[in-house]
Amino acid sequence: MKAFAFREINTWERFYRANFINSLTGFKSVSLIGTADLSGNTNLAVFSSVVHIGSDPPLIGFINRPKKAAPHTIANIEATGQYTINHIKPQFARQAHQTSAKYPVGVSEFEQVGLAMEFVENVTAPFVKESSVKYALSLQQIIPITLNETFLVIGKVEVVMIEDHILNADGFLELDKCETICSNGIDSYYATQHLLRLPYAKP
Amino acid sequence: MKAFAFREINTWERFYRANFINSLTGFKSVSLIGTADLSGNTNLAVFSSVVHIGSDPPLIGFINRPKKAAPHTIANIEATGQYTINHIKPQFARQAHQTSAKYPVGVSEFEQVGLAMEFVENVTAPFVKESSVKYALSLQQIIPITLNETFLVIGKVEVVMIEDHILNADGFLELDKCETICSNGIDSYYATQHLLRLPYAKP
Repeated sequence: MKAFAFREINTWERFYRANFINSLTGFKSVSLIGTADLSGNTNLAVFSSVVHIGSDPPLIGFINRPKKAAPHTIANIEATGQYTINHIKPQFARQAHQTSAKYPVGVSEFEQVGLAMEFVENVTAPFVKESSVKYALSLQQIIPITLNETFLVIGKVEVVMIEDHILNADGFLELDKCETICSNGIDSYYATQHLLRLPYAKP
Repeated sequence: MKAFAFREINTWERFYRANFINSLTGFKSVSLIGTADLSGNTNLAVFSSVVHIGSDPPLIGFINRPKKAAPHTIANIEATGQYTINHIKPQFARQAHQTSAKYPVGVSEFEQVGLAMEFVENVTAPFVKESSVKYALSLQQIIPITLNETFLVIGKVEVVMIEDHILNADGFLELDKCETICSNGIDSYYATQHLLRLPYAKP
C-alpha cells in the first residue's frame, strides 16, 4: 500500500489532484441533466454527483460546481424550478461526455453533441430521448456549500420513465439490463456486471 | 417505455417505493465508514451516498439518514471529528452489507461481521484492513437537510491509502484493477468493466 497525507496532496498539480481525488469516492452514477430557460432554450450537462436523499418523499440531490465554473444548469433550475435526470448508455457515452465542453449560453448541447430531445406534458425541461431511465424533478431547495462555493440542489421526483423489462416485482430496477453506465474520476466510463443481491440485514 | 407520476409513486408500499427510488440515481459508490466514539468503541457502516464535493481543498460528502434511523456514525463523527471511508471488494461484500443490521450501540460491526481494523498515526477512527482504497477525513461541516431530516456530512481528506499498482501517471486511480464494487438500490452489488476514458471536452 502507498500512503499520502493532505500536506502532500495539497502541493500536487491541479489536474493530477483532481484525477486522484475524483477517484476516491469510487464508481459513481453519471447522468445527463436537461434544463431549459424561461424562453425555452435547452441545455444538457453531464453530472457524476447525483445522490439519493430519501424515498418518502422521493428526493434526489446533485452537487453543482461554483456558478463561475458551471452556471447554466443551476440558472435554468432556479428560473423554472424544473429539470430532468437521464441515465447514459455506452452507445452515447461520447456524446454525454462532450456536453461537459464550455458551450456559450444559448447554444443547446442537444444539437451540438447529437442527442434527441423528448418532452412530456407539464414538464418544460427536456428529456434525453435515447435514455432508458429518466425522470423529471421539481426543485425543492438549493443549499449553498460555503466551504467551496458549490451547491446541493435537491428535487422531488415528479415523473419517471423506464424501459418496462427492467422493473422487478419488488420495485427494484435492473439497471444492468438496460446498460446504464457508471463513471470514475472525471473522464472514465464503465459497464457493470451483477454480483449479488442480499436480503435485509438483521443482527 | 413505462411512465409513473409522483401521485402514483406516493401511494406505493414503503419497500417497493424504496427499491424503485433508490434505483433511479443509477449505479453508485458503496463504501464502509469507520468511526470510533471518545472511549475508542468502534463502529462500521455501509453507505451508498458518498459524493465528491471538490478537489481543492479535497472535500468529500455523504448523506446520513435521520438520526433516529442511523444514529451511531454521525454521533461518533460529531464527537471526534474523524472518520474513514473504505472501498469494498467482492470478497467481503456480504460482510459489508451485514453492517447495515441494527446492532446496539457499543457493539462493533468489525467483530460482528468479521472484518479487521487497521489504525494509522494521528487518526483515531478505524480503517478496514481488507480494503484496497481507503482514506481518513476530518469533519468540516454537517449541513442539516430539513426537507427530510437527513444530513450532508462534509470532510476534508487527510490521509489516503491505496494499492500501488492502481495509481496512473496522471493521478487517476484504476479502481477496476483493485476490484472496487458499486451498488444499485439498497441491496444489489456490481463489478465494473472499463469502457472508455475520454479527453477533456472542448466545444
